[in-house]
Amino acid sequence: MKEQFRQHIEQTSPISEETFDYIFTFFKAKKIRKNSIIIDNGDLVSHEFWVSKGCLKASYILEDGKEKIIRFAVEDWWVSDYDAYFKNKPATLTIESLEDCEVLVLSFNDREKLCKEIPEMSYFFRKKIEGAYAAFQKRLVSMLSNDARQHYEIFTQQYPMLIGRLPKSIIASYLGITRETLSRISNTPL
Amino acid sequence: MKEQFRQHIEQTSPISEETFDYIFTFFKAKKIRKNSIIIDNGDLVSHEFWVSKGCLKASYILEDGKEKIIRFAVEDWWVSDYDAYFKNKPATLTIESLEDCEVLVLSFNDREKLCKEIPEMSYFFRKKIEGAYAAFQKRLVSMLSNDARQHYEIFTQQYPMLIGRLPKSIIASYLGITRETLSRISNTPL
Repeated sequence: MKEQFRQHIEQTSPISEETFDYIFTFFKAKKIRKNSIIIDNGDLVSHEFWVSKGCLKASYILEDGKEKIIRFAVEDWWVSDYDAYFKNKPATLTIESLEDCEVLVLSFNDREKLCKEIPEMSYFFRKKIEGAYAAFQKRLVSMLSNDARQHYEIFTQQYPMLIGRLPKSIIASYLGITRETLSRISNTPL
Repeated sequence: MKEQFRQHIEQTSPISEETFDYIFTFFKAKKIRKNSIIIDNGDLVSHEFWVSKGCLKASYILEDGKEKIIRFAVEDWWVSDYDAYFKNKPATLTIESLEDCEVLVLSFNDREKLCKEIPEMSYFFRKKIEGAYAAFQKRLVSMLSNDARQHYEIFTQQYPMLIGRLPKSIIASYLGITRETLSRISNTPL
């Protein structure tokens, strides 16, 4: 996991072995069983998670109990309720594992400390959040366009590794469409 | 405008006068007339804008010509098509002034140079984009919840300065509701 994480961090800047060893001390490895809730609506959120293995979903539960999936996180992605994490507020999202997962956990205070001490980490996290913001803008545009086929295309670009890996019902829920519509636009049987 | 911008930048860290004078050389002041398009769908986007005065909207135009408003930008906000700006791609959004505006313009290359040379600016832009990401997550949740009253409440929290300043038709378009519904939930005449 350590080598995978190093490659991930070095996507933005090369880092010496000594510095990386120091960076790695800020993270705590954790195994998560399938169907575990790691952040629940109402929790104070002081941690974010980097996914080494597995898949999680971040959802919003409506008052009538219906679930709306905001996003997924798979290998090399980061996940948290960022509205809560960045602003030290209770979570509005619920984050749950869809598979057995292995993650690295980082606290908000350690994230800030890392960024202050190591310019490469400040750059890394700035680039990561810029990418996440751009992806969110794309998802918003896709939702507003209200075109199921376009939603699906953007989904396949963003999460090609999830096609065939997740139950169709979960993909349909993310897209806000029925399984029948998903089957029609993806040209695959239910 | 320079003093307003300095106060804005110093929200995250104090900056010496000398350093601020240097930072300010990276920005170009520009006046924009009402109803001008400053970024058009298809443009390569190499600049972002900090609003000193006025109001702009970022929209997505559907194939049938209908407009969906993604967000507004008013005094002290930053605006661009960030998916395009961060990734050096053509714009999918259109950004247009709703009032006469005064802005400061920053190129992507200058932004990166500023962040590299001045740790306070790297911190500033990281904090700004974290806040923008959190706001986007909130907007997405609000849209998925599909509750016009909740949309309106989040809108009034996020843009209190726009109530009474923008035409009701534009606010309704942002919320994805009719003017009649907006009038009902905001308890104000059309």
